[in-house]
Amino acid sequence: MALEQFRAVKQSIVTLDMEGVLTPEIWIAVADKTGIAGLRRTTRDEPDYDVLMRGRLELLAEHGLKLSDIQAVISTLRPLEGAVEFIRGLREFTQVVILSDTFEQFALPLVRRLEFPALLCHRLVVEDDRVVDYMLRIPDQKRRAVAAFKSLNYHVIAGGDSYNDTTMLAEADVGLLFRAPANVREEFPQFRAFEDHAELLAAIRDVVTAA
Amino acid sequence: MALEQFRAVKQSIVTLDMEGVLTPEIWIAVADKTGIAGLRRTTRDEPDYDVLMRGRLELLAEHGLKLSDIQAVISTLRPLEGAVEFIRGLREFTQVVILSDTFEQFALPLVRRLEFPALLCHRLVVEDDRVVDYMLRIPDQKRRAVAAFKSLNYHVIAGGDSYNDTTMLAEADVGLLFRAPANVREEFPQFRAFEDHAELLAAIRDVVTAA
Repeated sequence: MALEQFRAVKQSIVTLDMEGVLTPEIWIAVADKTGIAGLRRTTRDEPDYDVLMRGRLELLAEHGLKLSDIQAVISTLRPLEGAVEFIRGLREFTQVVILSDTFEQFALPLVRRLEFPALLCHRLVVEDDRVVDYMLRIPDQKRRAVAAFKSLNYHVIAGGDSYNDTTMLAEADVGLLFRAPANVREEFPQFRAFEDHAELLAAIRDVVTAA
Repeated sequence: MALEQFRAVKQSIVTLDMEGVLTPEIWIAVADKTGIAGLRRTTRDEPDYDVLMRGRLELLAEHGLKLSDIQAVISTLRPLEGAVEFIRGLREFTQVVILSDTFEQFALPLVRRLEFPALLCHRLVVEDDRVVDYMLRIPDQKRRAVAAFKSLNYHVIAGGDSYNDTTMLAEADVGLLFRAPANVREEFPQFRAFEDHAELLAAIRDVVTAA
């Protein structure tokens, strides 16, 4: 069904987490390629993002891993199977914005493969190819972006997979989990959970049509 | 220069008007293709937007022009020369969102040709392919979207060509005019004015780099 056929007046926007929903987990890929096991920790394991990131930056410094090294790993990654078709499908009947706690310098190669959806995320502080710090653009950015779109009179459907998505899912008019680990699904039973991109696309289409 | 090379921490987003900046004026194209001269009326002829839109809807009904007829006209339109390359260039180093006072059902064929940038606009009420009403999503939506992105800690660069863009340009951190008529350029000398997409792209790149 294409946009032309919708009767709904309330306009919709879909906000999506990137890693785990559309792409592989970047840090896990870097851990696997470099053999630095400590880099395998993600927001799924450590809910305190600053603790997680400080640990990552220390590991990069310790192993002399530069931004360009990490980007070389990322450039070998592909979106999850079905993710490009999922984004294409969404764009035919709604607006899509990626809300990710990754960094622009990491995301670009993957965003390009996803055909450049708008991405709101954070930024690394880089000096001479060394990642010296990170800057959260704003705390709780995913939830606040959803609130901003609601204030612009959008009906917001949010999809994510882990702890750092749950405030966004709660703020949205409709929050959906995608391939969330069992602990997240159990802790947040109020969010319908999906495993397949085609099923998630169909569910979002239903929500938009009914909005 | 690619994103990887930017030292700047402040993240940027570019908000762009669509018609006149990236695409032809849709209603004028429909008037030309259908020969319905009344559809050439603009806000310059009728300052009350609601009166203007009611008149357009009456003309569509009177001539039996359906949404699919209008979309067929729009599907023959192409983005302005250089606009696709302009969007592609922007997406390599910043985020892009289109802020337009058009309607989703009209914009889709052109947005597709622009490679699906996110678009915040309004929506028509359509029943059985007849355009029966229109709904502004929110008043002064362009300015308010810019304010929302600023509240999310984005440095906002806005580009537009006419009166309905000037509150957005004023709200943005940097407002730029593109192919604006002489009266708009004269009335708003505080906004730098550009005529060429490549020059506008270079100017935005400079702003983002310095942000």
